[in-house]
Amino acid sequence: MEKINFEKVMIVMGSRSDWPTMQNATLPLTQLEVAHASAVVSAHRTPQRMVDFASRAKEAGTQVIIAGAGGSAHLPGMIAALSPLPVIAVPVESKFMTGLDSLLSIVQMPKGVAVATQAVGKSGAFNAGLMAAQILSLADAELARRLETWREQQSDQVPFEVE
Amino acid sequence: MEKINFEKVMIVMGSRSDWPTMQNATLPLTQLEVAHASAVVSAHRTPQRMVDFASRAKEAGTQVIIAGAGGSAHLPGMIAALSPLPVIAVPVESKFMTGLDSLLSIVQMPKGVAVATQAVGKSGAFNAGLMAAQILSLADAELARRLETWREQQSDQVPFEVE
Amino acid sequence: MEKINFEKVMIVMGSRSDWPTMQNATLPLTQLEVAHASAVVSAHRTPQRMVDFASRAKEAGTQVIIAGAGGSAHLPGMIAALSPLPVIAVPVESKFMTGLDSLLSIVQMPKGVAVATQAVGKSGAFNAGLMAAQILSLADAELARRLETWREQQSDQVPFEVE
Amino acid sequence: MEKINFEKVMIVMGSRSDWPTMQNATLPLTQLEVAHASAVVSAHRTPQRMVDFASRAKEAGTQVIIAGAGGSAHLPGMIAALSPLPVIAVPVESKFMTGLDSLLSIVQMPKGVAVATQAVGKSGAFNAGLMAAQILSLADAELARRLETWREQQSDQVPFEVE
Amino acid sequence: MEKINFEKVMIVMGSRSDWPTMQNATLPLTQLEVAHASAVVSAHRTPQRMVDFASRAKEAGTQVIIAGAGGSAHLPGMIAALSPLPVIAVPVESKFMTGLDSLLSIVQMPKGVAVATQAVGKSGAFNAGLMAAQILSLADAELARRLETWREQQSDQVPFEVE
Amino acid sequence: MEKINFEKVMIVMGSRSDWPTMQNATLPLTQLEVAHASAVVSAHRTPQRMVDFASRAKEAGTQVIIAGAGGSAHLPGMIAALSPLPVIAVPVESKFMTGLDSLLSIVQMPKGVAVATQAVGKSGAFNAGLMAAQILSLADAELARRLETWREQQSDQVPFEVE
Amino acid sequence: MEKINFEKVMIVMGSRSDWPTMQNATLPLTQLEVAHASAVVSAHRTPQRMVDFASRAKEAGTQVIIAGAGGSAHLPGMIAALSPLPVIAVPVESKFMTGLDSLLSIVQMPKGVAVATQAVGKSGAFNAGLMAAQILSLADAELARRLETWREQQSDQVPFEVE
Amino acid sequence: MEKINFEKVMIVMGSRSDWPTMQNATLPLTQLEVAHASAVVSAHRTPQRMVDFASRAKEAGTQVIIAGAGGSAHLPGMIAALSPLPVIAVPVESKFMTGLDSLLSIVQMPKGVAVATQAVGKSGAFNAGLMAAQILSLADAELARRLETWREQQSDQVPFEVE
Repeated sequence: MEKINFEKVMIVMGSRSDWPTMQNATLPLTQLEVAHASAVVSAHRTPQRMVDFASRAKEAGTQVIIAGAGGSAHLPGMIAALSPLPVIAVPVESKFMTGLDSLLSIVQMPKGVAVATQAVGKSGAFNAGLMAAQILSLADAELARRLETWREQQSDQVPFEVE
Repeated sequence: MEKINFEKVMIVMGSRSDWPTMQNATLPLTQLEVAHASAVVSAHRTPQRMVDFASRAKEAGTQVIIAGAGGSAHLPGMIAALSPLPVIAVPVESKFMTGLDSLLSIVQMPKGVAVATQAVGKSGAFNAGLMAAQILSLADAELARRLETWREQQSDQVPFEVE
Repeated sequence: MEKINFEKVMIVMGSRSDWPTMQNATLPLTQLEVAHASAVVSAHRTPQRMVDFASRAKEAGTQVIIAGAGGSAHLPGMIAALSPLPVIAVPVESKFMTGLDSLLSIVQMPKGVAVATQAVGKSGAFNAGLMAAQILSLADAELARRLETWREQQSDQVPFEVE
Repeated sequence: MEKINFEKVMIVMGSRSDWPTMQNATLPLTQLEVAHASAVVSAHRTPQRMVDFASRAKEAGTQVIIAGAGGSAHLPGMIAALSPLPVIAVPVESKFMTGLDSLLSIVQMPKGVAVATQAVGKSGAFNAGLMAAQILSLADAELARRLETWREQQSDQVPFEVE
Repeated sequence: MEKINFEKVMIVMGSRSDWPTMQNATLPLTQLEVAHASAVVSAHRTPQRMVDFASRAKEAGTQVIIAGAGGSAHLPGMIAALSPLPVIAVPVESKFMTGLDSLLSIVQMPKGVAVATQAVGKSGAFNAGLMAAQILSLADAELARRLETWREQQSDQVPFEVE
Repeated sequence: MEKINFEKVMIVMGSRSDWPTMQNATLPLTQLEVAHASAVVSAHRTPQRMVDFASRAKEAGTQVIIAGAGGSAHLPGMIAALSPLPVIAVPVESKFMTGLDSLLSIVQMPKGVAVATQAVGKSGAFNAGLMAAQILSLADAELARRLETWREQQSDQVPFEVE
Repeated sequence: MEKINFEKVMIVMGSRSDWPTMQNATLPLTQLEVAHASAVVSAHRTPQRMVDFASRAKEAGTQVIIAGAGGSAHLPGMIAALSPLPVIAVPVESKFMTGLDSLLSIVQMPKGVAVATQAVGKSGAFNAGLMAAQILSLADAELARRLETWREQQSDQVPFEVE
Repeated sequence: MEKINFEKVMIVMGSRSDWPTMQNATLPLTQLEVAHASAVVSAHRTPQRMVDFASRAKEAGTQVIIAGAGGSAHLPGMIAALSPLPVIAVPVESKFMTGLDSLLSIVQMPKGVAVATQAVGKSGAFNAGLMAAQILSLADAELARRLETWREQQSDQVPFEVE
C-alpha cells in the first residue's frame, strides 16, 4: 500500500481498463483545484489491497472516495462497508446491456451502507468529480466560490443555436 | 415558500404518497442528531415552488438536500440544476417495473449536473439520510464520532444465527 | 432569451448533440409548410433559460412545443409543467440500453402534467413534427388538406416489391 | 357502427377490461367540459369495426381520439394509420413486466405514422384526457381559460406538509 | 393488389428495409421446394393494402402467411385478425434494445387471435420458412420426406471439432 | 410411456404446476372439436421420457404438439429438436420478471429448429390451442368451417359499451 | 468468529431475511447426508466477519461454500475473492425487478474470480445444495451412489397426469 | 461419438461460432495443468449426440463438464438433466440484448437440476475453466497448490498505477 499516494479525493477503480472512463472524474477536480490521486484497487483480484486502502484512507487525510467498477461491481459498496468516508460510485459501462449489471450491482445497496451513485460511464465519472467538489465546498468557502463560477460558466456556454 | 422551514438537511419529495418511503431518510438523521425537515415540492405540479425552494436553500442555511420522486422523476435533477448544494436522490418505487423508471430518470444525469443516487425505495431513503450525515461529518468531528459508533453498533447487531 | 425566435412550432433540445436526431422533426413541418424554429434549451445546464422559454412561449404565439432530450431527460416534462401548450416529446437515443433511460424519463409522467411521447430517436423526431402538424390542422383547413395529400402520397410510395 | 356515438373526443379501448384504466381519461375532460364518448373497439377481435370507426371519426366531427390497449397493443397505431386525427395512446398495464409490452407496442411507431403516447396505466389515461383538452384549447379560448384555471388549482392544492 | 402474386406461402413485411432479414425465410422454402412469394405490406403506411391482402389470401390459395416487422410491429397480429390462415411472425431486429420492441409487439397477442412467433432477426426468419414447411408437410407426404431428409442432413453436418 | 395416450394434438408441460396455465389450450380445441390429450413431460427431470415422447409422437398419429414450460424452459425447443411435427410453445409465467426467462428461453431458437411461440401465460396457452386448430384446418374443411364460425362469433360478442 | 461452526458445506447469507430462501439449500444436503451449517455473514454490514470467515473456511475443513444475497449482492463474489474454495451463489429475490439486481450483481464476475450462480430464489437455493453434493461426490463414491439414487427417484416421481 | 475424446474436463458448445468465446475456458485449465478437450455438441441440431455425450461422460472418466451456448441456450441444462456430473455453464453473448436470452435460458433452472452459471461471454468462459479447476482441486492437493499460486500471482500482477 506504500505505493498509494493519499490525497483529499481518491479515485479508485477495479481495473486499468476503467481508466478511460474514470479519468473524466479528474477533469472537474482539476478545474476546481481539488487535490486528488488515482489508483487501481480491485475488490476481486486484490481484496487485501482494497481492505487496506479503505481502512487507511480516512486517517491518511482523504475526505471523499470515488470508486468505479463494471460488471458485478463490488468495489464502491465494499469500500463504503470498510470506511466511514462518503463514497461516490461510478458504474463503468460493460458489454452486458451497456452497463445495467454495473449500475444495479452498485446502486441497490442494502440499508445501512450507502454509496452515491452516478450515471453509467464517462458522464457519471465527470459528475463524480463534480459531486466530490460540491461536498468539499461545504467546508471550503473558496472552493464554493470557484464552484459557483464554474456553474455559471457552464450555463453561459450552452449555445442557443442548434448547430 | 414561507411555509417551508429550512434545516441543515432538507428532505423534499414530489408527492405526499412518497412519504412512506422518504420518512426512512429521517431515521439515521434522528439517530445521529442531524437537524432536518421535510416538505412536498413537486417538479411537475409546483414548478415555481421547486425553483423557489432550490434557489433559496443554500442562503437559508441548508447544506444537503435529499430529494425523492417516482416515475419520470425530475425533482432531484432539477434541484441539482438550480442549487450548488449536494443533492442526494431517492428513486421511489413505482408500479412500472418496480421503479426502473424512477431509477433511470434520476441516475442518468448529463455531464455537468450531478446527483447522488441511492437504491430504489425505503433502503435508498434510509441510506440518503446516512449519506447526508457522512457528508456533514467531514466538517463536524462530533458527528463523525457518532457516525463511527453507529457503524460499529450496526456491525455488532448482525446475528450469526440464521433464525 | 432575446436570441430565441418564437414560431408556431418550437423545437427545443437539451444539447447540440441532439440536433442530428431532432432535425428530423423539421422535415414534415417543412413539407407541410408549418412555421417552426429550433433552439438549445437545457433543463439541467440552463434551467433559467428553460423557465423563461416555457413561460413566454404561449404569449409569443407558439402553439405546439417539440422537446427532445436523452438520458435523465427532464426537458419535455418540465416545459409541460411550465406551459399550458401541448408538448410533444422525443426520447433521444442514448448509450444506455439504446435510450431506455430517455424513454422512461419522458413517458412516465405523473397524473396532471402530460407530454405526447414519440418513439426513441429519428423516427420519433420525424413523427413529432407530423403530430404537431396534425394538431394544428384541426383549426387550419388548408393544412388539413396538405396533410391528407401527404398521407396519400406516403401510402402510394410504398413499393410492392421487396427489393 | 350505428352504436357508436361520435363526440369531439372519442375514447376507445381494446377490451372492457381496459375500462377501469381508461375511464380516468374522462375525468379531466368532464372537469374541463369537453364533450367525449367511449366505446370498445378491438384491433384484433373486431378489425372491421376498427377500420369503420377510424375511417368515419373525422367526418363524424371527432377531433381527437384517445386509444388504450394492453399487451401487443395495436389499436392506437392502427387508428393513426387509418385516420388523420391526432391519436393519444394509453398503454394499459398488463401482467407482463407491468406493461412494458403495452408501452413498446405503442410508442415505437415507424416514421410516418405518429401517436402521442402517455404513461402506462391510470395516470397515462388521465393525462390522455388532459392532453386532448390542451390540443382542443388551441382553437377554443374558453377552454384555454378553463385549462389555465385548472392548472393553477392543481398547483395550489399540493400541500407543503408531508402528511 | 393485382401486383401481389399469391403463392402457397406468402412472405410479407412492413418495409423494404426488412428484406435482408426476411429473405432468410425463403431459404428453407426453396430447399424444400415449397412455392412462395414475397411482398411489402405495411400495417401503418398502407393499411388498406394490408386489409386487402389479408382478406384475399385464403381464397387466392395461400395456406401459410409469414409476416415480419420491427418496432411497434403490428403487421403479424393484424393479418391474423383479418385472416383465418396460420400466421408465422418474425420480429425484425430494431435499434431499440436490439428488437425487444419488435418481439413484445408481436408475441403478446390477446386471447383469441394467435400468431406463431419466431426468434428476433435472421434466424427467426429462416425458422419461419421452416415452420411453414413443417405445417404444410402434415398434408403433403412428399414434403414430409424432404423435410425428414433435410433434418438428418442438418444433424450430420454439425462438426465435432470446434474449429 | 405406455401411460401417454397419443391424440391428434398433444399438450405437454414440464410440471403439474403448469396445468392451470396450459389447460387453457384445451378450450379452443374442445370448442372446435379437435381431439387432444395432455401429459406431464419434463425436459429436466424426465429427459428420457421427453426423448421417448418426442420420438414416438409422429408415428403415433399426433400432428401438432403444444409444449409449455417456465423459467429456463427447454421443453418446446428440445421436442422440436427431436420431432419433425410443428411445436407450438407456451411460455408459462414465472416469478422472475413475470416470465421474461420463460419467453426468451423459448423464442430465441437457433436457425434450423423452429417453435411457434405464443404469449406468456394463459392467453398464450389459449392461442396455442387455437393455432393448432388453424394448422389442422388447412387439411380439414369441416374444421375450417367451424373455425370461421368461431371467429365470427368472437367478433360479434365484443360489446360496444365499455361497461 | 468462534460462533461459526465450520462444516464441509457452509451456507452463508447477508441477512436473516435471506433464510426463508437459503434454507432450501439444506434440503438436498440433508437428504444426501452431507454435513453442513449456516450462518449470517454480511459483506456490507460485517465486512470484517466476512474476511475472517472466508480466510478461515478452507483450513477449518470446509470444501464448498454456498453464499446467498440480494440487491447489490456482493457476498458470493467477495468470498470467492478471499477463498480458493468453490463458491456456489444464490441470488435472493429482491423487490426490484424480482431479483434482476441480485442476479446481475452475482453472475457478472470479472475474469479471474469465479462463482457458480444458481437461479434466483428458492429453486436456486435448493440447487445450490444439490450442486454442492455433486461436487463433493466426485471424491466420495458413497455420496455419488446416493446422488444417483436421488436423481432416479426424482424422475420416477414426476407424474404423467396433469392433475 | 467415437470422435469425441473424453478428458477430465470436457468443454462442449452448441456451435463452432461459440468457440471464440469458449476457448477462453482452456486458458486457466492449461495454466493449471488440468486435462481437457473440446467438442461441438448441439442440443437442437444434434440432440442424439448430446444424449450420447452426456450419458457416456461419467463412465468415460470425465469429472466436470463445461457447456456453452447462446440464445435459447438449452445445452447446459439438458446435459445436467442427463448426467450427474457438475455442469458449469457459459452464456455465450448473443445479438439479442447482448446475451440476456442466453443468460436467462441457462441460469433459471428448475429445482432438482442444477448448473453452475458463469458471466456472459469470454470472462464467463475463462471463469468456467477456473471453477472446474477449483472443483477438481478439492481432491488433488497438487492442483490446489498450483491454484493457490495462480491466485497470488493474479493479485500481484494488478498494477497500482492507472495507466
